[in-house]
Amino acid sequence: MYIEKIKSPADIKVLDTDQLNELASEIRTGLINRLSKRGGHVGPNLGFVEATIALHYVFDSPKDKFVFDVSHQSYTHKMLTGRSAAYFEDEHFGDISGYTNPEESEHDFFNVGHTSTSVSLASGLAKGRDLKGESGNVIAIIGDGSLSGGEALEGIDFASELESNFIILVNDNGMSIAENYGGLYKNLKALRDSDGKCECNLFKAMGLDYTYVADGNNIAELIDTFKKVKDIDHPIVVHINTLKGKGYKPAETYKEDWHWHMPFDPATGNTTVSFDGEDYGDMTCDYLMKKMKADRSVVTIVAAVPTNIGFTEDKRKKAGKQFVDVGIAEEHAVAMASGIAKAGGKPVFATHSSFLQRTYDQISQDLCINSNPATLLVNTASVYGMNDITHLGIYDIPMISNIPNLVYLAPTNCEEYFAMLDWSIEQDKYPVAVRIPCNGVVHTDKPVDTDYSDINKYKITQQGRNTAIIALGDFYQIGEELAKLIEEKTGTAPTIVNPRYITGIDSELLEQLKAEHSVVVTLEDGILDGGFGEKIARFYGSSDVKVYNYGLKKKFIDRYSVEEVLKENHLTPEQIYNDIF
Amino acid sequence: MYIEKIKSPADIKVLDTDQLNELASEIRTGLINRLSKRGGHVGPNLGFVEATIALHYVFDSPKDKFVFDVSHQSYTHKMLTGRSAAYFEDEHFGDISGYTNPEESEHDFFNVGHTSTSVSLASGLAKGRDLKGESGNVIAIIGDGSLSGGEALEGIDFASELESNFIILVNDNGMSIAENYGGLYKNLKALRDSDGKCECNLFKAMGLDYTYVADGNNIAELIDTFKKVKDIDHPIVVHINTLKGKGYKPAETYKEDWHWHMPFDPATGNTTVSFDGEDYGDMTCDYLMKKMKADRSVVTIVAAVPTNIGFTEDKRKKAGKQFVDVGIAEEHAVAMASGIAKAGGKPVFATHSSFLQRTYDQISQDLCINSNPATLLVNTASVYGMNDITHLGIYDIPMISNIPNLVYLAPTNCEEYFAMLDWSIEQDKYPVAVRIPCNGVVHTDKPVDTDYSDINKYKITQQGRNTAIIALGDFYQIGEELAKLIEEKTGTAPTIVNPRYITGIDSELLEQLKAEHSVVVTLEDGILDGGFGEKIARFYGSSDVKVYNYGLKKKFIDRYSVEEVLKENHLTPEQIYNDIF
Repeated sequence: MYIEKIKSPADIKVLDTDQLNELASEIRTGLINRLSKRGGHVGPNLGFVEATIALHYVFDSPKDKFVFDVSHQSYTHKMLTGRSAAYFEDEHFGDISGYTNPEESEHDFFNVGHTSTSVSLASGLAKGRDLKGESGNVIAIIGDGSLSGGEALEGIDFASELESNFIILVNDNGMSIAENYGGLYKNLKALRDSDGKCECNLFKAMGLDYTYVADGNNIAELIDTFKKVKDIDHPIVVHINTLKGKGYKPAETYKEDWHWHMPFDPATGNTTVSFDGEDYGDMTCDYLMKKMKADRSVVTIVAAVPTNIGFTEDKRKKAGKQFVDVGIAEEHAVAMASGIAKAGGKPVFATHSSFLQRTYDQISQDLCINSNPATLLVNTASVYGMNDITHLGIYDIPMISNIPNLVYLAPTNCEEYFAMLDWSIEQDKYPVAVRIPCNGVVHTDKPVDTDYSDINKYKITQQGRNTAIIALGDFYQIGEELAKLIEEKTGTAPTIVNPRYITGIDSELLEQLKAEHSVVVTLEDGILDGGFGEKIARFYGSSDVKVYNYGLKKKFIDRYSVEEVLKENHLTPEQIYNDIF
Repeated sequence: MYIEKIKSPADIKVLDTDQLNELASEIRTGLINRLSKRGGHVGPNLGFVEATIALHYVFDSPKDKFVFDVSHQSYTHKMLTGRSAAYFEDEHFGDISGYTNPEESEHDFFNVGHTSTSVSLASGLAKGRDLKGESGNVIAIIGDGSLSGGEALEGIDFASELESNFIILVNDNGMSIAENYGGLYKNLKALRDSDGKCECNLFKAMGLDYTYVADGNNIAELIDTFKKVKDIDHPIVVHINTLKGKGYKPAETYKEDWHWHMPFDPATGNTTVSFDGEDYGDMTCDYLMKKMKADRSVVTIVAAVPTNIGFTEDKRKKAGKQFVDVGIAEEHAVAMASGIAKAGGKPVFATHSSFLQRTYDQISQDLCINSNPATLLVNTASVYGMNDITHLGIYDIPMISNIPNLVYLAPTNCEEYFAMLDWSIEQDKYPVAVRIPCNGVVHTDKPVDTDYSDINKYKITQQGRNTAIIALGDFYQIGEELAKLIEEKTGTAPTIVNPRYITGIDSELLEQLKAEHSVVVTLEDGILDGGFGEKIARFYGSSDVKVYNYGLKKKFIDRYSVEEVLKENHLTPEQIYNDIF
């Protein structure tokens, strides 16, 4: 095996083309080994094996610097830079993250997991190089799906101003996570169809030099082109046409399913883990499908991750014009939703807590200043959500709940979630965000309210005394457990409050609590800084009521165990009990 | 005068071309009348008079809907839709805002003041129209300077997916606020130079139909083109070439100075108001010029508003490659700054608090997860800043101070500001933001610290007892006044604390305060929700210390009087004293 001998990129440079092709095949074996057991980004990585080999063959990393967009095609790079054990040896799987990571290797420059960032980040490396009078190539590597993101387009537009060495490698496999949306993809197709020769060229229209490689999985052809652009004295786009999922039949055939895939049997491609039971993704999709059928002014919007709320291809087709995938373009999604609401439509934009970060200004300016009644569905907004440092869902409460006019709702169970979502879609006064619970699908047999127009009205779900537990969203269940424990230990049942509204204070209820409560405990599934509990602490700041806020520390955490994080943050009922008694 | 008879757009449709031209001339008189007395956006509005007349002549507002980008070219539209008194009659100046505003007129659809939003917002109106089976044209109006913004590029890219009536009017006057930066402007020039005929066409490359009007100040030519695109069944770009500042010599000649202008003498163009004394814009520029001269790795970055930190054309030229204007591309600016810092450069990106909102994700992901030592300079971050609803600077504390790894500094005077800025540029561990004071240039004769590496270390500036006043940033001076008042009235001097760090708590100092203080007052120049004071309230939540937080209510406020807002929020020393004693 050649891969065993590759300790650093220098070891690739001695191989001939046949040996490099053999190496590519070995790398695919490693990829399938890890991905079949751990899950991960299958399609993008399989398609970019040859290009990565050619890059490391021609350029001299880390003096020449590769910056990967989203990192979804960085696995071969990891293998070629001393980390192949993490793909071939099961006991080393945990050595690496799924993203480029400067802590792992001097060949990685940024910890990246959001799309559309590579060109801007890399242009910074190039500008820094020029300011310091240094040399070396800087290469941004971006997939076609990431091109539609505002940050990428800003970066590509600005790149021509650099006037020095800068290479943008566009890895075009003809699709995003699902289909590509946006006019620029027609141009990419025209470029592919004309062998890069069509006059109308997005990259040239943005002031850049351009070259095309028809077979982006042909190592010799790639090496030839990379040699030509190495040490170039101005910015250039190298557009290569690759095959997503290359070398693994199921991934080549069902590209969307295999963009990211759960663990699978390599022989058949069948998934080896199964999720039984209910799932908010599918349930939300079913709800919205029904809603859209009944009301043609309802429209579901996603940004390149349709299946996260259950919109598989068949559902998308069935929803027709009432389903819009804007591609990687979250800013556009929010602003468009505001416009649709202004026109009397009923838009629902669903995205991850972490990706919502791209839309702060649009939520504030386009949506909330205008008070248009669009609905934002925020998912994986939780410590129980994704646990990669770049995909954490624990910051959205401080981020959006302090924007005026927004009503941010935190359902505590399944029935309340759908009641809130339905109310949000039907009302015409407020921009509303709904934080989808993330602690499994919890049902209630108690009736839930259907009308949430009495803004910031909290609900007492258990009347007790001495201690009041204000338990927000999917930490409500921790609040219930805590209440039981307090009652067991002290003989007195505490009061439980479901605040429901993240974005405001129920002064009347909080004032009333003073009469029979000396301690108020808040619980929220997110960081405490700037969050919900601090508003309660402020309210009671000058009173005699003692306030204890529970949530997470402000910190970037990575690949964590939920249980450990909860413990570290004193979030078990026992820990809280011991703190306050 | 024709303008007197125009009560609604219908009144324009009866005029012939000569009369429309006469109307244009009258409108310019109204524009100069208001702008010379109140100040405002001169250049963009003067250049767009004819196009606005032609739009209202051909289309039927409000059934046909115009969505203006930034609103900097919306004044003629306001005059033609029943609001001309606000331009001709001084006593009616206050009737309108400087931006489109649905509360003023049914012809305005959004309250807009940030750039690059029109295409997305308008595409929402179009989508809403289609969902509801309605008709009518939707026209997004965007200036060339706004095209480089990520939201605009996402919107333009997505527009072709609409497959129904949608018109994007590109008002190309060949410049942004200052020069245009970015490769796409080369393409706009090529299009202008070829009468719209060059094959390589940014808009076509984004999947859109396209037409060009060479003289965008020729009413007849514009009417002709608008008639052709009216009721079109697919998205199209109408690219018109207009003259910025048209019809007013000084504005035609000195386009950058006259993009936005203070009140002036119409006859000479001389500014009629003068600002004596010191200004942080110029002082910051002087400091950075010196710094850049001494260290070629320092680079100043702005996003289309160079003069806001004093970088007039001569300074920009002198700074050369160490000054970068990215154009409207704040996301790119932050990500590029992160890259420059990673490469060992020392980037300083200066922007308004309100525009920083466009970069939440870049600050979090590109900058802070990677802990790169870039400096963000945040200006007009204050109740004393800009008072238009779309430009408020009172939300940045909750927005960015809850992002992990960021060090957000709040200087309380001039000397501390430059000491903090200098420390930030020279250190290599943290992403740092500095909140430029906004309450005038306040000097101190006491020595200020030069080293801020002991993160979250607050400073006691006056040791007293009973009450501790923690006064952040440019509200420090209110804290000093309050301290004096308390000492006068009670005979006991309170303690004053300059917290300096917005992003964290000095637990040790706060713990010590407990010994001799029963009341802690916090002061901050921004909204309280998610802000600094709430963190102090949380810290003391379960103790006997009473905490009073002072700052602003979470609310969108518009064209306010600072004095009134301070009073409404109980921010005078007398009010605070009465609250706590």
